Amino acid sequence: MKHFLSIEKSSADELEALVGAAAALKAARAAGDLSARPLADQCWGLMFSKSSTRTRVSFEVGIRELGGHAMFFSSRDLQLGRGEPIEDTARVMGRMIHGAIIRNDSQADLERFAECSGVPTINALTELEHPCQLVADLLTLREELGGWRDKKVAFVGDADCNMGRSWVWAAKHLGFELALAGPEGYCPPADYLDGVGAANVSVTDDPLAAAAGAQALYTDVWISMGREDEAASREAAFARYQINPELLSAAAPGAIVMHCLPAYRGKEITAEVLETHADTIFSQAENRLHAQKAVLASLAQF
Amino acid sequence: MKHFLSIEKSSADELEALVGAAAALKAARAAGDLSARPLADQCWGLMFSKSSTRTRVSFEVGIRELGGHAMFFSSRDLQLGRGEPIEDTARVMGRMIHGAIIRNDSQADLERFAECSGVPTINALTELEHPCQLVADLLTLREELGGWRDKKVAFVGDADCNMGRSWVWAAKHLGFELALAGPEGYCPPADYLDGVGAANVSVTDDPLAAAAGAQALYTDVWISMGREDEAASREAAFARYQINPELLSAAAPGAIVMHCLPAYRGKEITAEVLETHADTIFSQAENRLHAQKAVLASLAQF
Amino acid sequence: MKHFLSIEKSSADELEALVGAAAALKAARAAGDLSARPLADQCWGLMFSKSSTRTRVSFEVGIRELGGHAMFFSSRDLQLGRGEPIEDTARVMGRMIHGAIIRNDSQADLERFAECSGVPTINALTELEHPCQLVADLLTLREELGGWRDKKVAFVGDADCNMGRSWVWAAKHLGFELALAGPEGYCPPADYLDGVGAANVSVTDDPLAAAAGAQALYTDVWISMGREDEAASREAAFARYQINPELLSAAAPGAIVMHCLPAYRGKEITAEVLETHADTIFSQAENRLHAQKAVLASLAQF
Repeated sequence: MKHFLSIEKSSADELEALVGAAAALKAARAAGDLSARPLADQCWGLMFSKSSTRTRVSFEVGIRELGGHAMFFSSRDLQLGRGEPIEDTARVMGRMIHGAIIRNDSQADLERFAECSGVPTINALTELEHPCQLVADLLTLREELGGWRDKKVAFVGDADCNMGRSWVWAAKHLGFELALAGPEGYCPPADYLDGVGAANVSVTDDPLAAAAGAQALYTDVWISMGREDEAASREAAFARYQINPELLSAAAPGAIVMHCLPAYRGKEITAEVLETHADTIFSQAENRLHAQKAVLASLAQF
Repeated sequence: MKHFLSIEKSSADELEALVGAAAALKAARAAGDLSARPLADQCWGLMFSKSSTRTRVSFEVGIRELGGHAMFFSSRDLQLGRGEPIEDTARVMGRMIHGAIIRNDSQADLERFAECSGVPTINALTELEHPCQLVADLLTLREELGGWRDKKVAFVGDADCNMGRSWVWAAKHLGFELALAGPEGYCPPADYLDGVGAANVSVTDDPLAAAAGAQALYTDVWISMGREDEAASREAAFARYQINPELLSAAAPGAIVMHCLPAYRGKEITAEVLETHADTIFSQAENRLHAQKAVLASLAQF
Repeated sequence: MKHFLSIEKSSADELEALVGAAAALKAARAAGDLSARPLADQCWGLMFSKSSTRTRVSFEVGIRELGGHAMFFSSRDLQLGRGEPIEDTARVMGRMIHGAIIRNDSQADLERFAECSGVPTINALTELEHPCQLVADLLTLREELGGWRDKKVAFVGDADCNMGRSWVWAAKHLGFELALAGPEGYCPPADYLDGVGAANVSVTDDPLAAAAGAQALYTDVWISMGREDEAASREAAFARYQINPELLSAAAPGAIVMHCLPAYRGKEITAEVLETHADTIFSQAENRLHAQKAVLASLAQF
């Protein structure tokens, strides 16, 4: 890989290799072995237009553990705030840094940066996709369920968000069954799904139907950053899509619960379900570190 | 020690060991010896809800000199700003970082973080205590006065602040005489002092009585961060509690003057006294570095 | 050198040595050789009162590549924001860090910090000068024109800005011909130029006269940070001072175009000229890295 911009543009082989590498890096870290330094002498820039805990910490620690140096820039710190075209920022940065990690609201800007900078570029969340979270999620499936082959994942709630779309592409590439459940107006539109063309991906407004027989129930916040003004209408629309004991009882026996955090108890998940499945959910969060180290190491070798 | 959360919960032995270790680290640094690397391969997170110069610089430099990596997060950078419970942030961070340094307005949140994260946690200032400053101050007493045994310290001004309370607990544990002087309403309440139960700690509204025979006069800003709206009433209340030549003449001959900075000339201290005692005061500031390196090294060995 | 505060106070020998060292560091980096570590075990503080991309990235990467650790402080992070005198901040920082890089609006504060802190201090942009950019520009002249001897540089636009004044002092020290062209009210005043006393520096309001025979045309933004409220009057005043094909045709054959970025297409430079000369302009930006590494290495050896 030269860049890691989306699950859509990744192949099944690339995803499987990343998950395998992430698992190996996790095992090495647990054994106290941080001797692999593929980013030695490298400086990577994190350019985030939105605040973040998990994303920033996991990348900074990961870069450091691979021997590199991380520089964090918020939108306040970048000349981008003064209207410099992304092509110019990319060309300047590309001559100084060894790789870029970008979190913004524009997949188009991300791809333009990757093209103009000439350095490896990673999508750390755009309006379209959240591919690093998805690799962490696949690692979690592997740890908890032994993999994704012949499994069913139910994504319940805001099914048309970036996380939902990364799941759609992962299902397309990897072949597991994915059922998206969300209220009308919050599901991927038909033409988008037609474009993906994955028979193993279904969409419904019935959360129980989606959960039926699933080995993994997955949710995300109902009100993501920047949509706080839609809080009331979203909470009303999503009320039926909570992960609670009733929904869990529709799933396969021993089904796991996943959440990419932050979690709002009593909204998309009950406090009890969150705490019962906390081991899985916080391992999933930790897996961001290992997944991203795998991505970084892969790009550094290019 | 597993954490360093307060002077209250520290023992005399722990405080003496920290001061000794700080002195040794200071001597090694002065000799150009930075070979000790107890934080090698470790990433520590600094999470500060208030701005800071001394605290942030001293921790970042200290972590680096001990071989580790420091990541600074302001409240703007943390999801905490979006209302994530501290238990969740702690559990996520605890799986990625090796230790946490927290500056906030809630000792309760600090302790909750320490409990939930599972990683060594340091109090870098809360509404209740400022224990790292206190270790730096003890190192300063040792350098300037040969120690604190049989010495009298006068804390003059805002005697009920976090700094004053850390001094109260230090006197309780270590046995030196501490006289707090402040106007009515700005001294530790009687029930608090009863709870401490230290006969060697006295409180008065007479600054000259507190200073009488003291080997060290100590003050802090009158208007700490977040209290700017009380400026007029505080300045009026504290006017008699300035460290000036008159107060110094009441102290023991050769008494030292300490200030944890920033200093406001003409308020809690005169410009002349500050400059006359600048060597002590800026050494005291520098001692934050050495004291905190001792704390970090101690926690890393746990 | 103990500090690097201005081109004015630098000597021709120092500037020539810095450009030579920058070229050598650039060649070593291109060959993958980052073995020189003059900043090993050192922590440098970047204190910026204005946002920045190029300046911050180039310093952070440079410090890291020389073996040191960079800490970035915005004005939000510093107690300076609470009114602490610069003398106190300097004395505290000087006991903890090994060097300071300051970007602010006050050359006087910069010089006061350098004096009080006791550690090497670098001007990363003040209202008076931008000396690090100038060293990068000299490196660019050396790469593109073989040097500056017997060359003519035309600085067109906001001729009285910090960049223009650094160019004036560079011409004074190094002897090349410098023609400044700007509208009335935006050129260095006569008494300033009298104080410099450089016969090889001329000022005109005629951009074509300045460009005549020049081997290098140089421009900067018309509306620098903090002057956005003057946008309309400045754009009107500067309209004749654009670098465009007509101005280029007045210059020497094969003249290069330089711009210290960010660039506003259609204002101080046309989009076409910018892209035609992009190799030079983005190399000039990259040269900030190499120039500043030369400055850092020089100060670290002091």
